[in-house]
Amino acid sequence: MEPRSHTQGAGMGLENFLNTVVVVSVKDGRKFKGKLRQYDEHMNLIMEDVEEISSKPITKHKLILLKGGNISDVSA
Amino acid sequence: MEPRSHTQGAGMGLENFLNTVVVVSVKDGRKFKGKLRQYDEHMNLIMEDVEEISSKPITKHKLILLKGGNISDVSA
Amino acid sequence: MEPRSHTQGAGMGLENFLNTVVVVSVKDGRKFKGKLRQYDEHMNLIMEDVEEISSKPITKHKLILLKGGNISDVSA
Amino acid sequence: MEPRSHTQGAGMGLENFLNTVVVVSVKDGRKFKGKLRQYDEHMNLIMEDVEEISSKPITKHKLILLKGGNISDVSA
Amino acid sequence: MEPRSHTQGAGMGLENFLNTVVVVSVKDGRKFKGKLRQYDEHMNLIMEDVEEISSKPITKHKLILLKGGNISDVSA
Amino acid sequence: MEPRSHTQGAGMGLENFLNTVVVVSVKDGRKFKGKLRQYDEHMNLIMEDVEEISSKPITKHKLILLKGGNISDVSA
Amino acid sequence: MEPRSHTQGAGMGLENFLNTVVVVSVKDGRKFKGKLRQYDEHMNLIMEDVEEISSKPITKHKLILLKGGNISDVSA
Repeated sequence: MEPRSHTQGAGMGLENFLNTVVVVSVKDGRKFKGKLRQYDEHMNLIMEDVEEISSKPITKHKLILLKGGNISDVSA
Repeated sequence: MEPRSHTQGAGMGLENFLNTVVVVSVKDGRKFKGKLRQYDEHMNLIMEDVEEISSKPITKHKLILLKGGNISDVSA
Repeated sequence: MEPRSHTQGAGMGLENFLNTVVVVSVKDGRKFKGKLRQYDEHMNLIMEDVEEISSKPITKHKLILLKGGNISDVSA
Repeated sequence: MEPRSHTQGAGMGLENFLNTVVVVSVKDGRKFKGKLRQYDEHMNLIMEDVEEISSKPITKHKLILLKGGNISDVSA
Repeated sequence: MEPRSHTQGAGMGLENFLNTVVVVSVKDGRKFKGKLRQYDEHMNLIMEDVEEISSKPITKHKLILLKGGNISDVSA
Repeated sequence: MEPRSHTQGAGMGLENFLNTVVVVSVKDGRKFKGKLRQYDEHMNLIMEDVEEISSKPITKHKLILLKGGNISDVSA
Repeated sequence: MEPRSHTQGAGMGLENFLNTVVVVSVKDGRKFKGKLRQYDEHMNLIMEDVEEISSKPITKHKLILLKGGNISDVSA
């Protein structure tokens, strides 16, 4: 990744994560691991083949939409 | 589902869930299972034949409107 | 109710509930049951002949305005 | 009150309460009873001759401005 | 104070309090007593000769800026 | 400080504090003491030679950016 | 750093931190240490070679996107 400075526009930086497996933390502490398929300018995310890795046992979701306003971070 | 990148517009990704049975988690921890009938650009949802599966006993609602700002995720 | 897809505009779906008795849940856990008389684009609601069914004993209000930003869901 | 449907504009429904004694609940659980004198499009309220009825003993305020974003409901 | 109805514009009602001693409650429960010197359209307030009356012992501030979004009410 | 009334514009009142040592309280209760170097219209602040006076032992920061939305008050 | 006054524009002050190692505190108390690579006008941050220094043991992330709305402060 090359150093970049300020970027304007929707979903800053999410292009770095598209179609890769990411872990998304949401504000209530839950964590979701799966492939990032789609995002919009509010950082709403569509993930596929998702495991809610913070639950015991792990819950699986074929498709999940995570509300942007509820997301804390996205990591790879 | 084909890989897609950034999409602009209202209700990103909710077209994937329309008229199917979904589980919606809201910020206070409640979960609602039912058919997604309608949504708007704030991610307000109208669901039909809904079971509040997080309550004991399960509460049923013929029709429910869930406020977009209160929604955490929508899964199928 | 016929399947409908995305709708733009104020108070999405609230026309389904107008002038009927609804139960409104607000974010602090209180529940209000009464006739929905009016709403606006922020989902502020005016209800009439309202019972605060989550209080003991049940509190009655001739007229109540519920702030949209504080509402969690509206059910029928 | 005649049935009305969707209304656009500032302070929806607050004209029903102007210059009457109302009880306002705010998000931290306090309740204020007094005459509603003024409001704006953010639902900021100016009340006169106010009793903070949730405090013991009841606190009195000649004039109070309640921040709209902190209000939960207004009842009569 | 004459009955007034809906008013549009910044800082609704704060002209009633300018250059007088007010008590401002903020969302975390602290209370500040002092002279209101300045306000803006976000209800950010500048107060002078302020006592934080909710602290023990009372803390004094020559000048304080209270963030509008953090304010619950202003009373006189 | 001369009495002033309503002012429009970014960072209302922060010009009173620029390049002086201030104490900034943030919403989670932490307090930062240092020189205010820069601010913007969201009340994001850049402070220099900062002591986090609410921590034990006191943490020092050469430079800190405090998010405007997280700030409660700024005092001198 | 020279004294500067009010600045308008996106990501105020973040140019001071670009491509340097920073510690970012988020609202839930977690702290992330790593190189700041990118930011946008919502203060969304992309960091590289990140250590979540508030976790035990320390979690490492090759790349992380921290949501601007969830950030409390950025320090160097």
